[in-house]
Amino acid sequence: MTEREIKNLLQAVQDGKLSAEKAVERLKHLPFEDLGFAKVDHHRALRQGFAEVVLGKGKTPQQVAEIVNSMLRKKGSRHNILITRADAKIFAAVKRAGGKDTRKAEFHQLSGFITVERSPEITGKGVIAIVSAGTSDIPVAEEALLTARMMGNRVEHLYDVGVAGIHRLLEHRGQLAGARVIICVAGMEGALPSVVGGLVSVPVIAVPTSVGYGASFGGVAALLGMLNSCASNVAVVNIDNGFGAACVASCINRL
Amino acid sequence: MTEREIKNLLQAVQDGKLSAEKAVERLKHLPFEDLGFAKVDHHRALRQGFAEVVLGKGKTPQQVAEIVNSMLRKKGSRHNILITRADAKIFAAVKRAGGKDTRKAEFHQLSGFITVERSPEITGKGVIAIVSAGTSDIPVAEEALLTARMMGNRVEHLYDVGVAGIHRLLEHRGQLAGARVIICVAGMEGALPSVVGGLVSVPVIAVPTSVGYGASFGGVAALLGMLNSCASNVAVVNIDNGFGAACVASCINRL
Amino acid sequence: MTEREIKNLLQAVQDGKLSAEKAVERLKHLPFEDLGFAKVDHHRALRQGFAEVVLGKGKTPQQVAEIVNSMLRKKGSRHNILITRADAKIFAAVKRAGGKDTRKAEFHQLSGFITVERSPEITGKGVIAIVSAGTSDIPVAEEALLTARMMGNRVEHLYDVGVAGIHRLLEHRGQLAGARVIICVAGMEGALPSVVGGLVSVPVIAVPTSVGYGASFGGVAALLGMLNSCASNVAVVNIDNGFGAACVASCINRL
Amino acid sequence: MTEREIKNLLQAVQDGKLSAEKAVERLKHLPFEDLGFAKVDHHRALRQGFAEVVLGKGKTPQQVAEIVNSMLRKKGSRHNILITRADAKIFAAVKRAGGKDTRKAEFHQLSGFITVERSPEITGKGVIAIVSAGTSDIPVAEEALLTARMMGNRVEHLYDVGVAGIHRLLEHRGQLAGARVIICVAGMEGALPSVVGGLVSVPVIAVPTSVGYGASFGGVAALLGMLNSCASNVAVVNIDNGFGAACVASCINRL
Amino acid sequence: MTEREIKNLLQAVQDGKLSAEKAVERLKHLPFEDLGFAKVDHHRALRQGFAEVVLGKGKTPQQVAEIVNSMLRKKGSRHNILITRADAKIFAAVKRAGGKDTRKAEFHQLSGFITVERSPEITGKGVIAIVSAGTSDIPVAEEALLTARMMGNRVEHLYDVGVAGIHRLLEHRGQLAGARVIICVAGMEGALPSVVGGLVSVPVIAVPTSVGYGASFGGVAALLGMLNSCASNVAVVNIDNGFGAACVASCINRL
Amino acid sequence: MTEREIKNLLQAVQDGKLSAEKAVERLKHLPFEDLGFAKVDHHRALRQGFAEVVLGKGKTPQQVAEIVNSMLRKKGSRHNILITRADAKIFAAVKRAGGKDTRKAEFHQLSGFITVERSPEITGKGVIAIVSAGTSDIPVAEEALLTARMMGNRVEHLYDVGVAGIHRLLEHRGQLAGARVIICVAGMEGALPSVVGGLVSVPVIAVPTSVGYGASFGGVAALLGMLNSCASNVAVVNIDNGFGAACVASCINRL
Amino acid sequence: MTEREIKNLLQAVQDGKLSAEKAVERLKHLPFEDLGFAKVDHHRALRQGFAEVVLGKGKTPQQVAEIVNSMLRKKGSRHNILITRADAKIFAAVKRAGGKDTRKAEFHQLSGFITVERSPEITGKGVIAIVSAGTSDIPVAEEALLTARMMGNRVEHLYDVGVAGIHRLLEHRGQLAGARVIICVAGMEGALPSVVGGLVSVPVIAVPTSVGYGASFGGVAALLGMLNSCASNVAVVNIDNGFGAACVASCINRL
Amino acid sequence: MTEREIKNLLQAVQDGKLSAEKAVERLKHLPFEDLGFAKVDHHRALRQGFAEVVLGKGKTPQQVAEIVNSMLRKKGSRHNILITRADAKIFAAVKRAGGKDTRKAEFHQLSGFITVERSPEITGKGVIAIVSAGTSDIPVAEEALLTARMMGNRVEHLYDVGVAGIHRLLEHRGQLAGARVIICVAGMEGALPSVVGGLVSVPVIAVPTSVGYGASFGGVAALLGMLNSCASNVAVVNIDNGFGAACVASCINRL
Repeated sequence: MTEREIKNLLQAVQDGKLSAEKAVERLKHLPFEDLGFAKVDHHRALRQGFAEVVLGKGKTPQQVAEIVNSMLRKKGSRHNILITRADAKIFAAVKRAGGKDTRKAEFHQLSGFITVERSPEITGKGVIAIVSAGTSDIPVAEEALLTARMMGNRVEHLYDVGVAGIHRLLEHRGQLAGARVIICVAGMEGALPSVVGGLVSVPVIAVPTSVGYGASFGGVAALLGMLNSCASNVAVVNIDNGFGAACVASCINRL
Repeated sequence: MTEREIKNLLQAVQDGKLSAEKAVERLKHLPFEDLGFAKVDHHRALRQGFAEVVLGKGKTPQQVAEIVNSMLRKKGSRHNILITRADAKIFAAVKRAGGKDTRKAEFHQLSGFITVERSPEITGKGVIAIVSAGTSDIPVAEEALLTARMMGNRVEHLYDVGVAGIHRLLEHRGQLAGARVIICVAGMEGALPSVVGGLVSVPVIAVPTSVGYGASFGGVAALLGMLNSCASNVAVVNIDNGFGAACVASCINRL
Repeated sequence: MTEREIKNLLQAVQDGKLSAEKAVERLKHLPFEDLGFAKVDHHRALRQGFAEVVLGKGKTPQQVAEIVNSMLRKKGSRHNILITRADAKIFAAVKRAGGKDTRKAEFHQLSGFITVERSPEITGKGVIAIVSAGTSDIPVAEEALLTARMMGNRVEHLYDVGVAGIHRLLEHRGQLAGARVIICVAGMEGALPSVVGGLVSVPVIAVPTSVGYGASFGGVAALLGMLNSCASNVAVVNIDNGFGAACVASCINRL
Repeated sequence: MTEREIKNLLQAVQDGKLSAEKAVERLKHLPFEDLGFAKVDHHRALRQGFAEVVLGKGKTPQQVAEIVNSMLRKKGSRHNILITRADAKIFAAVKRAGGKDTRKAEFHQLSGFITVERSPEITGKGVIAIVSAGTSDIPVAEEALLTARMMGNRVEHLYDVGVAGIHRLLEHRGQLAGARVIICVAGMEGALPSVVGGLVSVPVIAVPTSVGYGASFGGVAALLGMLNSCASNVAVVNIDNGFGAACVASCINRL
Repeated sequence: MTEREIKNLLQAVQDGKLSAEKAVERLKHLPFEDLGFAKVDHHRALRQGFAEVVLGKGKTPQQVAEIVNSMLRKKGSRHNILITRADAKIFAAVKRAGGKDTRKAEFHQLSGFITVERSPEITGKGVIAIVSAGTSDIPVAEEALLTARMMGNRVEHLYDVGVAGIHRLLEHRGQLAGARVIICVAGMEGALPSVVGGLVSVPVIAVPTSVGYGASFGGVAALLGMLNSCASNVAVVNIDNGFGAACVASCINRL
Repeated sequence: MTEREIKNLLQAVQDGKLSAEKAVERLKHLPFEDLGFAKVDHHRALRQGFAEVVLGKGKTPQQVAEIVNSMLRKKGSRHNILITRADAKIFAAVKRAGGKDTRKAEFHQLSGFITVERSPEITGKGVIAIVSAGTSDIPVAEEALLTARMMGNRVEHLYDVGVAGIHRLLEHRGQLAGARVIICVAGMEGALPSVVGGLVSVPVIAVPTSVGYGASFGGVAALLGMLNSCASNVAVVNIDNGFGAACVASCINRL
Repeated sequence: MTEREIKNLLQAVQDGKLSAEKAVERLKHLPFEDLGFAKVDHHRALRQGFAEVVLGKGKTPQQVAEIVNSMLRKKGSRHNILITRADAKIFAAVKRAGGKDTRKAEFHQLSGFITVERSPEITGKGVIAIVSAGTSDIPVAEEALLTARMMGNRVEHLYDVGVAGIHRLLEHRGQLAGARVIICVAGMEGALPSVVGGLVSVPVIAVPTSVGYGASFGGVAALLGMLNSCASNVAVVNIDNGFGAACVASCINRL
Repeated sequence: MTEREIKNLLQAVQDGKLSAEKAVERLKHLPFEDLGFAKVDHHRALRQGFAEVVLGKGKTPQQVAEIVNSMLRKKGSRHNILITRADAKIFAAVKRAGGKDTRKAEFHQLSGFITVERSPEITGKGVIAIVSAGTSDIPVAEEALLTARMMGNRVEHLYDVGVAGIHRLLEHRGQLAGARVIICVAGMEGALPSVVGGLVSVPVIAVPTSVGYGASFGGVAALLGMLNSCASNVAVVNIDNGFGAACVASCINRL
């Protein structure tokens, strides 16, 4: 029931065509979101002023292509499109899907993301800096980077600045100081966010990665390290969740 | 906003005192539960046709007594009252709280429950049987027993029927067969629900207890045993959660 | 020794052909289930008035086909047949197995179940509602759905109603309210059963799924969430155990 | 070596009193923070424009009182003072410490915090909303609330809005919508941040609490639930870390 | 129903006082253990030819004294009596309980065991050797020692022979070689059973103890070490379960 | 240095060819096992009076064949040969290795064991009974069975006697009662050893298997269940370690 | 049997008083360490050229005093004495024990260590630097410091140099560079050894502490962080094991 | 900014071309490592006087070959080259890379290491002994061995000396006693370092391996065993980290 329908219902009451009692009855049994005040939507966080997001995994290339196609056909919408956990086959299907915007589709091999950047608009107020510790953390960092960019943020990245070579990190202190939000991606002992958090006063979103072996337990060591950070401006997301870190950072950057 | 108020609002529309547009606007911004259709309540499961439940822990004896007092003063209500995680001091305060019903208050030392049985009414359709493995499991079993009883169920119990003395259990097969729902309370290896589940065709609610030492890990061994039960009519609640098991069993017994 | 044989034995005593002492001796050494009073059977829960269940995994397609064949040949039996953890090869073998009922065999790809629905009889008293959170939980939800249906229950399902888009769930409150038992399937944080449990007063059987990554630890996060549910009408089964949840729900629905 | 000293050194070079080589040598061996460009400080996040924070635990009441005293004597500084993990004895010592500001000292029993609010200045741009699930989560919520307030934020709180009674939460949607950052405090299954995260588009900082028993494992269940949240605007801090959540939220609110 | 009663029943059939059908019916509903062939008893392992065992924990001193008293009064029985997890108060009560045998009661402080040795009879065929690693493991070793002795075994012990001082162990190789079963008690890394197992060809029952700190996790490190022993004649019991190890060893020693 | 050599050395002293001092010196630096009293050998437990054991895994088929060949050529030895973790290729190589005994080689597919039974001699004093719960536990049970048999024991097995169908187990009580040692193999909740242990008074060696899914955690649930067994005659070996269980049982059976 | 006795035995052979055969026999059955070549001793690492170590915990003050007394009376020995896990009562008893050296006894409250420094001799070749992160780590750091000092090492310490204030650490780089071995003590995320390890080229012994709360899991987070250190010159000891770290460092410093 | 540039800057001050103020300003904003005193580098530990290390994993054969090639072309450098986690393809590419040194390239299959030994120089002062328990631990032992050798150490190895055959280990005591550092590699129960540590007084670096099954949990059992070692000269590195153990040992051996 749309706002219009409610108005019609009330009009019917006003016109004496419907008794007040009956109207109460009908209103009581409406699914409340039809009343127009239940605009909550679990994709809203991503859609409002952001990219449209499609999870590639578990869908056939053709299914993904059709979803993308319908997004591209939506009039008035110039949102960026982000396909997560995709592969070369999905990419080929998307390219074939046609429409001039598919020419803008790009496949990012490390993270398995496909991006269709349709809108150059920057809606985030400052820079999101993405800092990662080792070369093996780069896929997760790229996932964060592409997500943040598709959501309309200016993004900078500092790769390979692990804590065992602290000078490399310190040498980029200026760049860190210029960021409005920092995403820290690290596996192994997950110490990077503590050091970075101590160097800046903006929020640091820490992403543990599953990089490591033995007692890294698939990222648990890094996760625990980050949750126990002695820097007080650090919050943490799930292991390998570069996408989620960028969503949180993007929420913050739009404030 | 109560149903009455909504009716008044609609009456105002009918009477031409309020335009349809304005009425829509007001309805849109109402907290929806005021419309009268949001009667959901996380205590409903316990309150509808059941006992009233007070968590004793974390409250002063005086606070508990006052809550109980206000329950006793509610007209028309003859619900049983259940105070969980209580102690002798709380019991004394409740007894002092006055009113003739407090004479019915009883303190159950093992489980730390206080009961005020005001209504002898049985609303559960069949018998809930509570089976426990060792003498140390009895406090949790008593917790389940009192909860089930206060919620209007006929309850039977079989204590000390562990799986290492299987004949004791088998000798009570008749009793098990007569139950409509069975609650199985066991610590250590938590094997009892598997054996009981194999003997009956009614649902078995398994409660792991923290009884044990060393590799029982505070009930984890029993919990895992129950989750992996080879009997297919077994579902599990949290460690030591006799109260919760009885709530689920009571829900089932009222069907 | 069947009931008939026992009767014969007692007849022999009555007829003076066997002394009481000898009869005692023979009875003492009988495997007791031969006495006819040990009809316990760990498959009973599934067979009595239900489907016949075959575990496909670990058997050759030919073996499964033969088992199904012998079930189909059993006179008088019109039970539904459920083959769990099967695949396309097993399905082909079953189809070839012949007999007109194999024409009713269906293969369900998501859950890997084969069903042979021979009896349309509904023995469950009410509706079992199956609610799942994300699209990746659907295989486990389908496993529950098919099991419940083959066991003679009316089943309804609500898919993709995660807690981060709470309105979708609330909009189906009517459907939830109409169910006699609810099966809640959810991975990740496993929060769905708590919310659903708060909306209804019937028992909720929660199934954690191994959906997720990183700190979901193959379903452990969801499992723990469900065991710690703040709704008191929730009981839990093993990770990914849609079959078990449906068995428990079916037990309940026949009460 | 302060900036002044460096200038003197360079002046000496300019004046020909020191050779360039010697100056290089001396600069090379300076602790670099003496150069004035190493103003990083791990307490900076808390001190810049915020409260001064003293950890009460592990210090004698007298030691805490002296630290507070020296803070109060610092000229020009009107920072709020926050003493964490304190108790009644520490509070008495602080009150005795003298100075008119100690009259403003307050002891908050639930969280064990002492506050000395000297500056009413609000530096955070919006409202930080603190939402908690159960009454047992309130100490951690209060810890977050006092920290956020002492750091110059407007704070609102919604207590006792657990997910099993979803309407209570929904009824406050307006209040949630008005916040710039939300702190979600929950024990047991830790589902609250997922539901709240789905209702708003601002960042949600989730704090698992150690509330619960059995399979809550001292807050691990809630922690895992929050890390696996299906809402994408949620980041997590350590178990019971209300202080840390407020620090992160405060960082965000000053952006 | 005893054997006699069954005979009577059959006699009634023989005498024509009871029809065969009725007899079948009655037999079908008998609890089978009444047939006389269900003599299983989960305490049998301990009682048959062994000590009588009373768990002291969770009983009042008076209750324990009464149980012991009734044991002492049983005619014909000269079993040893073992009270586990007892304390000085229980010991005093037992001493006061009277009867000449209570003069034989002894309290063993380290293990908290009370023994009443009434029978010097040795029923075990060989020697049980109890080997422990550190002085802190002695309470668990003493628990094993007293249990084994009360159950009629010759027991020898080798204390303080940890693997980091391998020569101490090797110097007692003769003693180890003379044992029929060996109980190995060790905390920390739990390596002792592997070394001992390699030196002998008899079964080694390993008991991990909760001795240690940090990453010993209350005995888990020792438990895992023992389960992974590279010696193939090692089996393991629960952490700190000296009693259980002695029960198993005693079973073996009577073979 | 063999016993002979030591005698020679001492003879040289006796003959005055070597001074006492020099003899002391030489003895002091000898590897002590050369003295002839260091016959310890970690394979002894398996070799003395048993089978010869070859670990197939990690060796080429040719390497295994050569080892077996050299065993077959050893004069006087008629030991059985057991090749663990082997496959069809290794079996073919062993068959090709020649010698008449290889005709006796058999490959056991479920357990991946190859046996060459050369000696029918039974050295174990009684029967080892191997009891397993489900069909998926059979590979581990077979591993135990073949190991026990190759080591000269009479072995009986009872498969598929899970605790959810307790009558099946009880019907074989006679067989259990006749065993001298029992090996219990079970996955999932690992409850079988507790029930079996309660029915007998001989030692029970419990083997948890990795059978199960979800919260079975690769056999951890079964392992914990067995370590926490309420039957006191149960000791445990590592997950899936059928070989080890049979080694321990064989040690016991030779006593 | 001492070297002297062996010589006597051989002399007897030489003198013809003992046959070679008999001598062989006697030598074969000697505990080999009596031969004089088994000087291994698990306390040797601590005693050779080091302090004498007494574990205070689990001993009465009087027992400790007597042990210390006997050490003090040993002629010729001027070793330092270290009593670990002691308290004020033990200290008083040691002081009363008499002898002029007890005047040198000192009680160190934070670590609970008592030292009796009798020998000022420095046997370690370089400096052991002890670096710790937070004030709560100091007890463990002091434990390491006192142990290292009593064992004859020059020790320096840097306290309160956590990674979130990296400049404090960097400012002491000179001091770090001067050490021959570094002990790094840190709780929470345990990141310090990685940063320190990257700054130096000497071995770093990392000690995780149980400092922290929630997801620090009693030091597990720090332990895992250290085991996964991205610096390759870091090795780890048990949680809170300052004593062990100093033993390892001391071993290294004597090389 | 190099040292030269700083000198130029100071010269400019001296020459009056730059004011002291401006120079201060420029120095303040320099990345400090440009000052020439920040030569820290997280690869330094490996490069200074050691091998050059290339991580093969995650790089194409061509990429590795090019890196090696550029190392080989560096003038003056005769460092050994170590390629970790490589395979046959990478080895072929390196061989093809040309230059006479590639003829020295060797591929080590067990550990997957490629070595190019260009410098025979021994820089370590003593011998590093590598001791391993079982044949399956050899790949990790070889990893340690090659790393230590490439870093200029004399290395000896003792393979297959598990604790269940203690005499094998004891027979090599002389060899152990001759080492300056010992690396102990062991899976399963990880007991070897405790026994070895008790036999020597030099530092022992323990490497747990993931060898084992069931309750070895991928090396966790061995890791915990080593962390809880009762020998006080043992420090531990990550599971399977033979490379790291050799780095630490090499650091020590150069002291």
